[in-house]
Amino acid sequence: MPLTIGVIGGGQLARMMISPAVALGIDLRVFAENEGSSAALAATVVGDYTNADEVLAFAEGVDVITFDHEHVPQDVLAALVAAGVVVHPSPEALGVAQDKLVMRERLAELGLPVPEWARVSNSAELAVFLEAHGGSAVVKTPKGGYDGKGVRVVHSATDADDWFENGGPLLVEELVEFRRELAQMIARRPSGEIGVWPVVESVQRDGVCAEVIAPAPRAAGRLSDVAADIAVTVAEGLGVTGVLAVELFETTDDRLLINELAMRPHNTGHWTIDGSRTSQFEQHLRAVLDLPLGATGCHREWSVMVNVLGGPGLDDPDAHLTMTDRYAAMMAVQPTVKAHSYGKEPRPGRKVGHVTALGDDLDEVVYQARAAAAVFD
Amino acid sequence: MPLTIGVIGGGQLARMMISPAVALGIDLRVFAENEGSSAALAATVVGDYTNADEVLAFAEGVDVITFDHEHVPQDVLAALVAAGVVVHPSPEALGVAQDKLVMRERLAELGLPVPEWARVSNSAELAVFLEAHGGSAVVKTPKGGYDGKGVRVVHSATDADDWFENGGPLLVEELVEFRRELAQMIARRPSGEIGVWPVVESVQRDGVCAEVIAPAPRAAGRLSDVAADIAVTVAEGLGVTGVLAVELFETTDDRLLINELAMRPHNTGHWTIDGSRTSQFEQHLRAVLDLPLGATGCHREWSVMVNVLGGPGLDDPDAHLTMTDRYAAMMAVQPTVKAHSYGKEPRPGRKVGHVTALGDDLDEVVYQARAAAAVFD
Repeated sequence: MPLTIGVIGGGQLARMMISPAVALGIDLRVFAENEGSSAALAATVVGDYTNADEVLAFAEGVDVITFDHEHVPQDVLAALVAAGVVVHPSPEALGVAQDKLVMRERLAELGLPVPEWARVSNSAELAVFLEAHGGSAVVKTPKGGYDGKGVRVVHSATDADDWFENGGPLLVEELVEFRRELAQMIARRPSGEIGVWPVVESVQRDGVCAEVIAPAPRAAGRLSDVAADIAVTVAEGLGVTGVLAVELFETTDDRLLINELAMRPHNTGHWTIDGSRTSQFEQHLRAVLDLPLGATGCHREWSVMVNVLGGPGLDDPDAHLTMTDRYAAMMAVQPTVKAHSYGKEPRPGRKVGHVTALGDDLDEVVYQARAAAAVFD
Repeated sequence: MPLTIGVIGGGQLARMMISPAVALGIDLRVFAENEGSSAALAATVVGDYTNADEVLAFAEGVDVITFDHEHVPQDVLAALVAAGVVVHPSPEALGVAQDKLVMRERLAELGLPVPEWARVSNSAELAVFLEAHGGSAVVKTPKGGYDGKGVRVVHSATDADDWFENGGPLLVEELVEFRRELAQMIARRPSGEIGVWPVVESVQRDGVCAEVIAPAPRAAGRLSDVAADIAVTVAEGLGVTGVLAVELFETTDDRLLINELAMRPHNTGHWTIDGSRTSQFEQHLRAVLDLPLGATGCHREWSVMVNVLGGPGLDDPDAHLTMTDRYAAMMAVQPTVKAHSYGKEPRPGRKVGHVTALGDDLDEVVYQARAAAAVFD
C-alpha cells in the first residue's frame, strides 16, 4: 500500500506536489477550497478548511497532513493532533508563521538577526518608534498578509490608524536599507536530517516575487554560509518540518536580516523543479513523510525563474492571444525554457505560472527567462 | 479553455505524461483498461479500447487522441478519423508499427538498413531461410509482441511449428551479430518540425530493456549522425507524429540496422525525464498538439536509467521490505538518484519503475543507478 499525504489547500503549491507524488508512487490527496482549483486533479475533497469536522474526515487514512498555505486555524490543527493525525509542520511551528509578532519574538529569542521591531497598539506607540527611526517604518498586520498585502510603509504616526481601528497590536519594523533580497530554502525531516539549497536572490515588484536567480550572484563563501546557518537555526529552533523558506535582506552594511518565514514550498524555490537535483516539492513530500532527503545540487551553473502574471484577461479586447497561443509563442522562441502553468484564468497581476531557464552564462539565462515570461504580458 | 489530450491506455507511459500535462496546463484524459491502472489519477474512462463506441465517447471534446500503446485496432482508429477526431500518430503510421511484416516492407521501400528478412508461411519456407543464413535465425510473430514476447531464436525449421499452426505468415530475420543495441528517440510535429535526442545505448536482459546510457558511449560523430538520419527518414517516410523510438543494432562490422520501431514514448527514452531539457513525455504532448518542440540537450554529460523490476512480491516470505522501505533505503544511499514508480504491485520480473542517475563521470553514474535499482531486487 502506498504512502498517503493529505494537503490542505488547492493552490499552485499543492498542484506542483502532484508530479513528485506521481514519480514516488505517493497517493496525494488535496483538500481544496473550491472546484476547479489549481490542484483539482488531486482534489478528493472540496470544503472549508476552517471546519474541523471536514478536515478530520479528509485526514482519515492519510499518513501525514501538510499544507499549501499557512491559514489553517489552530483549533483545526489541534483537533487533528488530538485525533492522532500526524501533522507536518507541527501546529506549534505553524503558529509562529501565522503571527508575525510571535515570529519576531521567537526569532529574537533564538538570537537571530531581524530588523529592529516593536509591538505597537496605537498611534502614540507608533510615534515613539518613528521618532527613534528617522520618521519612517514598515507596519505589518500580524496575521493574514501575503504578497505585499498587510504591509505598509508609514511616514506618520496616523498612517496605520485604519488598521489600529480593527483592533489588536501591529508589528512595526525599521525601514531596512537593503542592497537586495535573498531567500534561503531548506528542508528538515522530523528525525532531524536537513537539506539546504543554495541561497538565491529574489527580485520583488509591487511586493510580489517577480524573479529569482539561483544561486544568488556574489554570494559564495561567507554570505552563503551565514544564510544557511540562519535557516538551520530557524528550522531547528522552531521545530519546522518540511520545506522552510527564509526571506532575507542583505543590508547596505553587509548584514543579513530575516524578513519573512514560510513553512512550505515557496515562490523563491520554484526554480528547483527544473534547476536542482531535488525540487522543493519532492523534498517537501520526502520530509513530511520522514523519508531520506534528496540531493540539493544544481544541474547548471545558473537557474533563473520569472513569474508569469496574467496579462490582459481573456475577455479583454487587448487579449488577442489565447493562453494556448501565448504558450506556443513562448515555446517557439525559447525552446530551452520550462513553463509551469497553475491552471488559473489569467487576470492582470495574478500569478498564473512561472518559467525557468538554466545555463552557464547568467546574462543569457536571465534574458531567456525574461523573454519567455514577457510573451505572456 | 485549456488544450485537451485523450490518451488510450493507462500504463506507465500515460502515467508519465501526467507531470508535463500539469506543467503545461494541458487537460490530460486517460482511457484505462481497468481501475487502479498506472495512470488512474488521470483516467476519466475505464473501458475496452477495442470497442469503437466506447472510444468515440471518450474522444468527445478532446483536441487530439494519442496512445500509451500500439494495440488499438484499425477499425477503432478508422471510426475516430471518420468522426473527425484528430489522431496522432495517424492510423496509417500506427498500422506499420502494429505489423512487423508491414514494417519490414515499408522500411525496405524507404531504403533503410534492416536485417535480412523474409515472410515465411510454413516450415519449408523457414528451412530455405535457415539454409541461407547458417542454420539459425530469429522468428517473430507479426503482431502483438513486446518485451521479448513473440520473438524466438530458431535453429531448426520445425522450431516455429506451434506459431505456424496458429495461422498467418511469420517474419524471419537473420541472427544479427551485433556489438550492442542502440536506440534513437525523436519527435515530429504534424507541421514537420523534428526534435532529436542523442542516440543511446540500451542493454537488454531476457528480451527486456534493463539499462540505458545516454548518450551512447563512443557514438559521437558518424554513428550519431547515421542514427539520427535513420530516425528522421523513418518519421518522415512513415508520417510518424509524436515521439518515435527506433531500436538499432550496431553490428560487429560497424553497420546500424533497424531492429524495432515504437510510435510513442519508449523505455529507452525514460532518462529524458531527468536528463534532458525536454522529456520524451513533454515532447510527445507538444508534438501531438502541434506545439513548438522543446530543446533536447542534456543537463549533464551522462544519464543512466535502470529499470526497477519487482523483486519478491509483497506476499512472498522473502519480501521483508515493503515498497516504501525499499524506496527509503534507496533514497538513503543514493540521494542524487531520481526514482519513478509506476504505481504497480511488485511481482518478480515486472517493470514497476525506473531510476535515473546523472553526472559527468560515467563509471560513477552507472554505479549509482545500478546500486539504486539493486535495492529493489
